[in-house]
Parts: sequence; C-alpha cells; structure tokens
Amino acid sequence: MAQLRIALAQVNSTVGDLDGNGDVIVEWSRRAAEAGAHLVVFPEMMLTGYPVEDLALRKSFVEASQRALERTARRLADEGLGDLPVIVGYLDRRTVSLVRAGQPAGSPLDAAAWLHDGKVLIRSAKHHLPNYGVFDEYRIFVRGDRLPVVRVHGVDVATVICEDLWQDGGPVSVTETANAGLLLSLNASPYERDKEDFRLGLCAQRAREAGCALAYVNMVGGQDELVFDGDSIVVGADGSLLARAPQFTEELLIADLALPAADPALEPGHFPVNAMDGTTITIDRQILSEDPGPAYDVLPQPVTEPLDDLAEVYAALVLGTRDYVRKNGFRSVILGLSGGIDSALVATIASDAIGPENVHAVLLPSRYSSEGSVTDAEDLVKRQGLHSRIVPIADMVEAFEKHVDLTGLAAENLQARIRANVWMGLSNEYGHLVLTGGNKSELATGYSTLYGDSAGGFGPIKDLVKTMVWNLARWRNTQVGSDLPFLHPFEQEPIPEVIITKEPSAELRPDQRDSDSLPAYDILDPLLIDYVERDMGRDALIAAGHDPALIERVIRLVDLAEYKRRQYPPGPKITPKNFGRDRRVPITNRWRERATED
Amino acid sequence: MAQLRIALAQVNSTVGDLDGNGDVIVEWSRRAAEAGAHLVVFPEMMLTGYPVEDLALRKSFVEASQRALERTARRLADEGLGDLPVIVGYLDRRTVSLVRAGQPAGSPLDAAAWLHDGKVLIRSAKHHLPNYGVFDEYRIFVRGDRLPVVRVHGVDVATVICEDLWQDGGPVSVTETANAGLLLSLNASPYERDKEDFRLGLCAQRAREAGCALAYVNMVGGQDELVFDGDSIVVGADGSLLARAPQFTEELLIADLALPAADPALEPGHFPVNAMDGTTITIDRQILSEDPGPAYDVLPQPVTEPLDDLAEVYAALVLGTRDYVRKNGFRSVILGLSGGIDSALVATIASDAIGPENVHAVLLPSRYSSEGSVTDAEDLVKRQGLHSRIVPIADMVEAFEKHVDLTGLAAENLQARIRANVWMGLSNEYGHLVLTGGNKSELATGYSTLYGDSAGGFGPIKDLVKTMVWNLARWRNTQVGSDLPFLHPFEQEPIPEVIITKEPSAELRPDQRDSDSLPAYDILDPLLIDYVERDMGRDALIAAGHDPALIERVIRLVDLAEYKRRQYPPGPKITPKNFGRDRRVPITNRWRERATED
Repeated sequence: MAQLRIALAQVNSTVGDLDGNGDVIVEWSRRAAEAGAHLVVFPEMMLTGYPVEDLALRKSFVEASQRALERTARRLADEGLGDLPVIVGYLDRRTVSLVRAGQPAGSPLDAAAWLHDGKVLIRSAKHHLPNYGVFDEYRIFVRGDRLPVVRVHGVDVATVICEDLWQDGGPVSVTETANAGLLLSLNASPYERDKEDFRLGLCAQRAREAGCALAYVNMVGGQDELVFDGDSIVVGADGSLLARAPQFTEELLIADLALPAADPALEPGHFPVNAMDGTTITIDRQILSEDPGPAYDVLPQPVTEPLDDLAEVYAALVLGTRDYVRKNGFRSVILGLSGGIDSALVATIASDAIGPENVHAVLLPSRYSSEGSVTDAEDLVKRQGLHSRIVPIADMVEAFEKHVDLTGLAAENLQARIRANVWMGLSNEYGHLVLTGGNKSELATGYSTLYGDSAGGFGPIKDLVKTMVWNLARWRNTQVGSDLPFLHPFEQEPIPEVIITKEPSAELRPDQRDSDSLPAYDILDPLLIDYVERDMGRDALIAAGHDPALIERVIRLVDLAEYKRRQYPPGPKITPKNFGRDRRVPITNRWRERATED
Repeated sequence: MAQLRIALAQVNSTVGDLDGNGDVIVEWSRRAAEAGAHLVVFPEMMLTGYPVEDLALRKSFVEASQRALERTARRLADEGLGDLPVIVGYLDRRTVSLVRAGQPAGSPLDAAAWLHDGKVLIRSAKHHLPNYGVFDEYRIFVRGDRLPVVRVHGVDVATVICEDLWQDGGPVSVTETANAGLLLSLNASPYERDKEDFRLGLCAQRAREAGCALAYVNMVGGQDELVFDGDSIVVGADGSLLARAPQFTEELLIADLALPAADPALEPGHFPVNAMDGTTITIDRQILSEDPGPAYDVLPQPVTEPLDDLAEVYAALVLGTRDYVRKNGFRSVILGLSGGIDSALVATIASDAIGPENVHAVLLPSRYSSEGSVTDAEDLVKRQGLHSRIVPIADMVEAFEKHVDLTGLAAENLQARIRANVWMGLSNEYGHLVLTGGNKSELATGYSTLYGDSAGGFGPIKDLVKTMVWNLARWRNTQVGSDLPFLHPFEQEPIPEVIITKEPSAELRPDQRDSDSLPAYDILDPLLIDYVERDMGRDALIAAGHDPALIERVIRLVDLAEYKRRQYPPGPKITPKNFGRDRRVPITNRWRERATED
C-alpha cells in the first residue's frame, strides 16, 4: 500500500468570472499544499462556473476559458505551487469538430485538466451528458471519450466528471481495467431535498465497481435558480465512508488514504477499452511520480453529519439568496413587509444571508390593512434590526381611482402593483435588489399579482409550499443561540409568534382570507407537491388518495396560473435571430464580451 | 408514368388542442377529397401542435395524442373519408423504452402516421433531431429509424419529417434505394428572414438525391415567439418547381403529378438499409392500391411568388400577433399610445391582425409630454378607428412623490410604471391582452423600464431594430388600396406622417431625446444585428468595419441590459422540483390535464 493525502476543494465559483475563479484555484491550491496534500481536486467547470448554458456555444467564451486554464497553470508555478498536481474543471472544445447532425457548434467539452509544473499535463471531458430536468447538455456539449490515469507518488489516480458516476458504462466502467488505485469525481451537482443519501450510496456502489477508493468533490454555492450543496465525500474501495465535508459551505476536505501501489509494469500511453455502453474509452496513462515517499502520520478524518431536513432546506435558501445578491453585484435588498408570514420569512432569510443591516423593509399599509399588520411588521423590524420605512398607499390608490374605475380583482391588483411601484422606485434610487415574497402554494395556484407582489429579482421562498413556510419559520425561531454557521446570531426569536399563528390574508379587500379562494393549505400542499413536483396525472392523483373534486379544482387553478405566468413575460425578450426565441444564458454571469484576456 | 393528385394541407394547428386540431384534419381532408386528391398530407406534429417542448415528457399528454390519432382515423372513416390516405404528424412513443443515458423519459417520438379505412396504416418518426437555435429535440424525442413507403394508385410514396430533409444521411438517403416515386416531407419550420429561398434550393437538391418528386408541406401560424410561414413547395425529380403555396396563410395546395409507376415486383415487408449516417433505416413497404385508375385532366398548378422583404416581415408580425391573441383566448388588445413611432406601428399591426374595432388605445400624457404627442396619437386613433381614452398621469405621479423622493432614472421609471399600472388595470377589468411596444434597438440596449413600458403579454415589434420600424411604417402607409390579404382596408394612410418623421423621445424628462442616450439608429442598428443576431465577438465586429469606440459602448450596453432583463423575472417561476428550474412548456397550449379523453 502507498500513502496519499488528497485535498478536495469544495468551493464556490461564479459563472463567467474566469479571473475570480482562477484566483480561487490558486488560493485553495496553496492551502492544500500547506496542508501537505499530494494533489488537490476542484469541482466540475470550476474555472467557468456551472452551468454555462449557451455561453458554451460562444467561440470567444470557449477560447477565454482555454486561455484562462493555461494562465492558471503558469500562475500556480510562478507562485511556487508547480509541484502540486491541481485538477480543475473548465470549458474546452474538440480540436477536430464533428460535423454530425445535432452536434453543438464548435464541439464544446465539459472538460477537466491536470495542471502541473506550469503546464496542462492531461485533459479529458465528461462522457455521459445529462439532458433531463435542469440539464440540457446535449445542446451544449459533445461527449468525451478518455479516462486519464496519472501516477502520483506511486498511486494511479483516474478522473471522471459528474454524470459519469450516475450512468452505467463509460469511464467508470473502465476504471477497474485501468487498475486505478483512486478515482476522483469532479461535480457540480445541484441540491434537491433527500438527494444526499442517494449520493453516498452511489459513491459506495461505484467505488466497489471500480475496485478502488473514490473521492467525490462537489461545488457549493447558488447560481440563479440552482443551489450546489457541497457534501463532498470520500469512500474506500469497499464503499465505506472515510470522510465527508459539511453542506452549503466552502471546505477544504483533507483525506489521508492508504491505497494500492501502482503496477510498475504499466507504461504510459493510450489504451482503448470497450466501455460497455456502445462506446470505446481510451485510457490515457501518464506518470508524474513513482516514489511513494517516506511514511507519515495520518490526520484525523472529518466525517460531517448531514443536516436535518429543515436545517438543510433553510441553509439552501440562505446560500441561494446570498449568492444571488452577491454574485449579481448587489450589497443590499429591499422588500415589502406586510405583517404576514411570507414576507416575514423572506426578511429573516435575507438577514441570515447578508446581515440585517443590509435589509430594507417597506411597510405599505392600505385602507384594508389591519392595525396588527403594521405593528407586527414593526415588531419584526425591531427584533431583527432592519432598516424600514412606512409608505401608506391610500393617496396613490385614490389618484388612480380618480381617473380609472377598477372593480373586483382589477382593484385588488392595482394595490399590489402600486406597492411594487414603490419598492421598484426605491430599488432604482438606492440600488437595492428587490426580494419578492411569493410561496409555491400561492404562485402555483395564481394567488398573486403579476407586476405586483410577484415583482422582484429573486424569490427566496418560491419553492416552498405554505405549510413548509410555517414549519421553517417555527424552526428558525427555535434556533436562537444555535451555532449553525448560516444563521445570524439574533438574541431573540426573529419572527413574532403572532405572525406565525395569524390566519393568512392578502388584505386587498375588507375581511379577505386566503381560505375564501384556496383550499386549506394542509390539504392543498400535498396535492400541489404530487401534481407540480411529481408530475402525477389525474388518475395517479386519485389513486394517491386525494379528493377527486379537489383534484379537478386544483388542476384547473394550477394550469391556468402556469399559463398566465408564462403569458406575461417581464418585458419581451429579444431573440438572437430576427425571428426566433431567446438564448439560454445564466442570469448570474460575470463574463462579458468586453473583458480583456491575456 | 402514373398520375397522382396530391393535396398539401398548409394549416394552422394549436399546441395542445387535440380536439380542435382533429377537427381541422377532418375538415381539410374532406376538402382534399372533394378536390379529387389521392392523398392529403398535413404538417409535422399536426395533431398536437408544434413545438410541444416538455409536454412531450408528460405521459398523459403522449397517451392523449395516441388516442386522438386513433379517434381521428375512425372519425375520417365515419364521415365517409376512409378511402383517402391522410398523413398526419403527431406525438407517439417507442413501445420498447430505451434505457440509455441521455434518452428522454418515455421515449417520445416526433411521429407521422398514414390513416386509412378507419385505422392507422403505418407509423414512422423523425430521424434527425434538431438541437440548436430554437430547437431542443434531444431533450424531448428519441430518433425514428424507418422509412414508410406506401403504394397509392400504383405510385410508391415515402414520408420523412422536417429535419430529415436538412441533414445528410438518414431516411432521405434511403429513398432512392427504396425506389420511391414521390417523397412527402412533413414540416413545422419557423420563419426567418431570407430563409425561404434556401428552402426551395434544399427541396430541389433532396429531390435530385432521392431521384423522385418531393412535396414539402409546412405549418402556418404563430406559436409563442415563433411564426410558421407555410410556403409549401412541390418540386419534380429534377428539382424544378412545380407548385408553391402562399406564405403566412392557410392553403390547400393541390398538385397533379406524373410519377413513375411502382415496380410490381417490390413486395410489402421490412428492409433494413445502411443510412449513410452510422445508422440503419428500415424501409417499411405497404401496398394500398396498385391500380393507377383512369387518366384525367390535369389542374393548373399554382406557383405563388414569395412576398418581397418588407411585406414578408410585416405579414409575419401580423400573423404572430393575431395567433398570440387568438390562441391565448383573447378577443381584444390594449396598448399605451404615446404619439411615437413604436406604439403607432404596434397599433397598426394590431388593427391588421384583429381589426381596429378590437384595439383599445390609452393615451397617458404626463407633464413632460409634448402637445404634439397627444394630437398625433389622436390623429392615428381617428385614422384607424380605434377605441381610445385619455388618462393623464400627473396626479398619480404627484401622489407617489408626496411619499417617496425619487430622482433621475428612478423618477423616469416611476412614470413608465404608472402607465403600465393603468393599462394592466384596464386589462384586468375588461379582459384585453396588453401589447407592449418596445423595439429591438431599445430593448437590446436597455432603453426601457422593467414593469413599465416593457410590461405586457406580447411585443409585436420586439424583433425589429428601430430603422426597420420606420421602414415598415413607411411601407405600410404605401399599402392603402393594396389587396394583400393580411392588411386591414384603411381608406387613408394609417400612420400620420409626422409620427414617422419626428425625432424619437421617451418624454420622461424635459426635452429628452433618444440621441441623448443612444448612438444614431442608422449606426447603432447594423452593429446590434452583428452583435446580437450574428453572435460576432469584438474582433469580428472590428473586422466588419464598426467603429471600435462604439463597439465598446454598445457591447457594454447590450450585455448590461441582457443581464438586467434576465435578473428580474415577471415574478418568480415555480419549479417542478423542490429545488431546480422551470419546465420548458409552450405559452400557448390548449392541453390541460383536466381534459377528458375518449
């Protein structure tokens, strides 16, 4: 057996920020070297951020990524880190472009490279391209077809990328044939509830198949609608858990591994192997160092326990909100605070994400607002130490009513839009990002005003059904004094109890209640989850035990709301062709055509 | 040679409207039968509409399409049309689901079927799946691998679908081997400027390759951001043009063809052939009728001349607007009419699309509006016979100013948002769809207010640069007395000349001019087209002769505007998973889970 100390850099990269991401690589490589690591591995698409979407099709962006990779290799050597093998994900392209139907222009690759001694030692690319759910990788990448195996201190180390682990066949299936002693997996794997246990099981299974230890490094951080949760993992060849990083935070996970020494008879070169999925994978074997080096004492292996369910969801919301604000260049946020539970939870998440001193609340009472709404909101402002102002909207409503007669829903929407007009104006004047407070139950059923309460740049709780909003608010109030790193140290419960217990109301007409328009949330929410998230059709919903009349009503509400939501874009998108439709480009993207490279 | 009379049904189908699209199939099949046609062919995905996007992944939708196909076959027979072969596009799925990485769940197929005698005679599916530009078909379809060849009145007729014609190899390459006498191509091919000549050349080239006549039937109609332009084409085996349908309108194109009689020695059955693209295509040969029937007199072949450039673009805008309104269930539209050129052209397009009696204009003068703005807008209202009302916004602006101090851009945006608030309120009250008036030059450079002038459901001129807006306005004024079918018969020029000639201004502060903020449009527009539509990088823009300083300025404006436009969704989208991102679903979609089938 040979000893190998590996460092997994679970870091937060930003789409398009090639320089900033390069800085992160250098900084964390130095930390890995200082910790005595023999190699350091970064996540998938580290250098460009992930997902880059249609930016992969832009020639100038691919070339900027290629140049940034070379520049990072040189910089590592210049700063005395040339001896440390540094494995990073980046965007590359095939040198021979495939002219086959359906292949993306320029043949971009979701690539990984070993950097060493100021140079790029070896390159490979993701073989299995996910093309479902949030992924569209057949659109933007072509497939890689090699398994790099690099001998480091006498151990043969192979690398694969993300989806390669999730599909049978391909490079992982070749790893045993390649006689690798360690398999590194570079990932940008988004958070879903209950996914992390599946991940550990998968790592264990693939380690056993590959016949070697497996180190899984994942990205951490928010990117538009996605949150990457970290949770990097090291397992032994038998699938046993050796080390695990915390979720939702950057971490340099160091693991000391005892690994089988490489067979010295195996020579460098290229060796094609049947990859059991209809393709051939070429093993690309290189030798950096044969010498295992002197024995050393093993460090303790950190094995972090995963967070419990509510803490995990809350951490994802805090990180997603913080990174949307920060990566889009904002320092502060503004939101309407109604005295209801939704805006209260959003304010609290914002306080945890960027500090209450950067959160600006606007209280916008109307003639229909209850006395309690204002005082409850003011109580929350005081508990959390937010900035706040009160802007009564009655005069503005009257000014409209003088010229335009609106009734019923149109009159209710008018109030919601006047409020949005105020917070958008303050946002334009002072540069705060607008947070919007809709939850999934009301957005899914259309209980919301377009360009009104739904107006804003980021909706922290848009993916929470209402019952979950209450659960998280209660949970957050229990965490006073907690040492969870993603929570602001409030000295009292941040959310007034009465905000959690009051009956929900939009307060857009006298004595309005959510229950006038919607089924009770404890009945509605499970049905919404089955219909919206699990994609169950009517028959399946009935079989799952939901009330048939309610199913009809909710399906009608949801379909109509989805239709209306899509019908009104925030303003028309312009298209890249003279007729056509929009490109897919990430919102948070630091890359600009104007950026000067080299 | 054998005579064959074919009917190409260039019709307008609606996504999700299985019943309505089925009605269209029956009605147009009857017209084809009455015209003595021996077969009738409908566009790609006729029965479901196109594009269905992620609806293809929904099991209940695929099954609804399959049932609708069988039902349509029975209905055709019930109504006495069972003898006529009817070829329709629809959504199907593979019976044996492929479990391979990257294959969409349920293996949906972009399929075509021959309906005859109350039954489905033969099925096939698109082989080449486009996955670039507006297409994401690797995400939602698996590939078909057969070429149906059906003998009709002694002629062997093969069918392929859309992209199969645009790529080398695959079923078209097998057509000559199959000895087909006619190749039918079912299409849903979106309009782009200058595309139609390429289409004719392509049809001619593929006819020569296939060694037989080719009939190309295309969908017509607007679907969300796309417009299908019809322009169905029939060419002979030598590539010569035999018949051509008009653009942007429904048409039953009848063509009498003299075609080689089928070789009677060729028996029904399945015959695998190398398709020259790494795949095998199976020829699926069936015999409906061997008898060519008695000779008959040939009808004159209509060969419509394509429209000239401005007429073609204008027709696309009218059809796109009409179908967005109609297919989304609206009868009327509302728009803010400023007295400027953009809203004037939008009003005119709307009048042409749905009739001036269904167009509601709101004039919203502020303290900065010039006297001319109101009188010019009123002149347009009178010329076109629109409904109109004047809602001065000064009181509303003052009501906001009493409570919130806004300066500079924030104050300008406030006015734009107050206007949007008025037309959204009237839209909610009276059920009009809001049209928004931004052009591509101002949207691309960010010269527009989020939730303000950009608020609305559909932006008819969002894909026109400003110079094109002027060109089309001038062109439209020359068409008084024209017999173009997509124009309303105004008795005088619909747009007052002064609106076309005045210097453009947003009128949000005293003496404001577009030229304070933007380069002259005749310099800006060509640069925008090269950067936004042609995807040229900085070096390429310099090489194309644009001024380097202007390039820097415009790239900065466009990148920043794109970023801001994406940053603020109209309201957060809810996602189909607990964390993730939105499904891709068409806006105009008549299919609802609640629809009862059979």
